[in-house]
Amino acid sequence: MGDSLRPDWSGRLRRLWSSARGTSAPALIVSSPINIKYLTGFEGTSLLVATPASTWLLVDGRYEHAAREARTAGAIAAIDIRRVENRFDTTLATVAAELELAACACEAESVTVATLEAWRRVMPAMAFIPTYQWVEELRAIKDLFELERIRAACRATSEVGRALGTLVAAGRTEREIAGDIDAALLRAGCSRSAFPTIVASGPASAHPHARPTDRRLREGDLVVLDFGGVLDGYCGDLTRMAAVGQVQANARALVDAVRLAQDAALATVRAGVLASDVDQAARDVLSRHGLGEAFLHATGHGLGLDVHESPRIGRADAGRRIKLEAGTVCTIEPGAYVDGLGGARMEDDVVVTAEGCEVLTDAPRDLLIV
Amino acid sequence: MGDSLRPDWSGRLRRLWSSARGTSAPALIVSSPINIKYLTGFEGTSLLVATPASTWLLVDGRYEHAAREARTAGAIAAIDIRRVENRFDTTLATVAAELELAACACEAESVTVATLEAWRRVMPAMAFIPTYQWVEELRAIKDLFELERIRAACRATSEVGRALGTLVAAGRTEREIAGDIDAALLRAGCSRSAFPTIVASGPASAHPHARPTDRRLREGDLVVLDFGGVLDGYCGDLTRMAAVGQVQANARALVDAVRLAQDAALATVRAGVLASDVDQAARDVLSRHGLGEAFLHATGHGLGLDVHESPRIGRADAGRRIKLEAGTVCTIEPGAYVDGLGGARMEDDVVVTAEGCEVLTDAPRDLLIV
Repeated sequence: MGDSLRPDWSGRLRRLWSSARGTSAPALIVSSPINIKYLTGFEGTSLLVATPASTWLLVDGRYEHAAREARTAGAIAAIDIRRVENRFDTTLATVAAELELAACACEAESVTVATLEAWRRVMPAMAFIPTYQWVEELRAIKDLFELERIRAACRATSEVGRALGTLVAAGRTEREIAGDIDAALLRAGCSRSAFPTIVASGPASAHPHARPTDRRLREGDLVVLDFGGVLDGYCGDLTRMAAVGQVQANARALVDAVRLAQDAALATVRAGVLASDVDQAARDVLSRHGLGEAFLHATGHGLGLDVHESPRIGRADAGRRIKLEAGTVCTIEPGAYVDGLGGARMEDDVVVTAEGCEVLTDAPRDLLIV
Repeated sequence: MGDSLRPDWSGRLRRLWSSARGTSAPALIVSSPINIKYLTGFEGTSLLVATPASTWLLVDGRYEHAAREARTAGAIAAIDIRRVENRFDTTLATVAAELELAACACEAESVTVATLEAWRRVMPAMAFIPTYQWVEELRAIKDLFELERIRAACRATSEVGRALGTLVAAGRTEREIAGDIDAALLRAGCSRSAFPTIVASGPASAHPHARPTDRRLREGDLVVLDFGGVLDGYCGDLTRMAAVGQVQANARALVDAVRLAQDAALATVRAGVLASDVDQAARDVLSRHGLGEAFLHATGHGLGLDVHESPRIGRADAGRRIKLEAGTVCTIEPGAYVDGLGGARMEDDVVVTAEGCEVLTDAPRDLLIV
C-alpha cells in the first residue's frame, strides 16, 4: 500500500524532473498557489524555485514561521525556506543569482504579464521559458495519498446526495435548499463547499450556471442540484436531479436522455482512451435524442485539489489530444438545457483504471420525485 | 442622494474613458472577473471589450441566457452581448476586427502570459498595450451605491464582533469558534465569509495568518479573531482581541501598543495624505514600544467587492506614492507578533473623507477578557 498518511513530497518534486518537461529547463519558478501546495504542502503567498538539485520556497514574514514549523513537523516538503523582506521579485532575483541560473521556466498559465515584466526588470539577463501544464499534468495522475482523500470527499458528498429527499420539497426556496446542502456537507465532515452550490428549479434548470434565488419550488419543476465538499483539501463534485410532483413527459424524457448519455460516457472511460471520445459518446446519445444543441458544456473535468483541473473531458480542441491515464480522477457530467422546458445534468466522479473506471460517488441516480 | 438602488453602470463605463488612462488607448480588454463585475454587474466566465463608443461582453453558451435576462431586467449594464461559440480568443478576434481595432489595452495584472500569447496568435497585427490598475483605481473611490453596501457589510460584521463574548471561552477549540463566527455572519445577513476566518490562540496568535486548529483555548492565551462578511457582494473586515483570564503583563502591553498604533493611523487618515504616511504613523508607535520589527505586514488595504483591493496602506514601495482620496474605503489594522509571547492585531474599516475618516465598524475595541 505504501505510506498513505503523508504525501510523498520528495517523490512529487522528483517527478517534476523525471517528466519530459524536466529535461528542457534548468529550473522552474512555480507561481500557481495550488501547484505549490501540491509539490510542497505549503499554503500561503509564496513562490517556489525548483531545480533538480534543490527547491526554495520564498515566503514573506507573515508566513515564514508557519512554513518553518510545518517543515520541522514534516507537514510540508523538506525544502529550503527564504524570507522575502520586501518584494518577491527582488528575493527571486537573489535566489536565482545564488543558483547561477541563466534560464528559468515559468508557468505561462499562472504568471501575469505584469509579474513577468517585473521579473524581467530585476533579472534582465535571465531567459524566461514559458511552460504549460507542467505541474498540472503531474497532478492529473493521483497518487495513493490523493485517491484516499478524494474517495473520502466523494463519500461525504454522496452522503449529502442520499439525503436530498429530506431537503428538496415544494414550497422551499432554492436558497434555503442550497443553504441546507452546504450545512449538510459540513456535518458530513467537509471543511467547506468546493464551489457555490447550485439549486436551479423550473425555468432556471435550463441554465447550467444558475445561482440559487428565493424562488419557491412548485409542482412540475425540474430541479438541478450540483454541489461538492472539500475534505482534507480534496474536492468531491456531484449533480443529481429532482422533480416536484408530476413533470411534463418531455421533461422526463430529457432527464432520461441525460442519464443515458452519462451511461455511455462512463462506459467509454478507460486508460488510453481520448478524453474527446468520452465526450463524443455522451454527445452522440444526446444528438440521437435531438438534444445535441442543448448540451452546452464539456462532459467533465479533472478533480483533485481544485474542483476544476486537468484533464478537460471535452471536444477535441485545436487538435490537442488528451489521452486518459490510469489514476486520473474526473467528473462525468453531461447535461441538456432547453429554454421553456427545463434542464438536466447528471454528474459522478470516477477514477480511470486500465479496465475502465471506478465510480467514486454513490448516491442513487434515479430522478428524485418529491 | 442620487439613485442608490442600482449601480450607475453607464457612469462607471464612462469614467473608464474620462480617467487619465482613457486618453491613451482606443479600447480596453477587461479580463479581471471582479473588474467586469464592477463595470457591468455581470458575474461569470467572460471578457469585456470596452471602447468609448460601445462595450461588448463575451460569454459562452452557459452564461448567455442569464446575461441577456439580466440586461433586460437592468441588473447588468446595457452592453452588447456576444456568445462565444468555441474559444474566447477567436471570438475576441472577431469583435476586434468588427470594431476595426489596431491597438488594445489589456490588464497586465490579470492577463496571463499564456492568454496574451493566445491573443497574439489570433490577432497577429494587434498592438497590445499592458495597463496597470486602470479599473482598480476607479474601484478605489466608492460611489454612493457601494458605500451603502459596504456600510451594511460592516454593520453585519460588527454585529458578530459585539457577540464575540458569547463565542470565545476557555476549553473551546479555535475551529469551533471560527465555525460559530461563520454561522453568526450568515445569521447577520451575510451571504458568506469574505475570507477564511482566523481564530489564533496562544502561540498561534504570533502568526498573522494562522489557521484555526483543534487547539483548546486556555488560561493566559491571547486570541486574535479576524473575520468579515460579504453582503450584497461587498466585504467587511474586522479584527478583535480576546484574552483568556489573566495574561502576562507584557502580552497586555503588546495589545495596548497595537491599539495605540491603530489610533495613530486612524488619526492620520485624510483625503490628500499619502497611504505610506498612515502606515508610518502606526509603525512609529510600535517602534517606540520596541515592536517595530514585530509589525510584519502593511497597515491596511482597500476594501470593496474584493476583500483586498487598492489602495495598499503600506510602506512607500519603489517610489510609488499613493494619495488617499475621499470615498476610498480601507482597513486600518496594525499588528505585532512576538514568538513566545503572542500576537495582537486590531482592525477597523474606514471611509476616507476630506476632514479625516469615518469608521464603519463599531464593535468595542477593548480587549475582551473571557
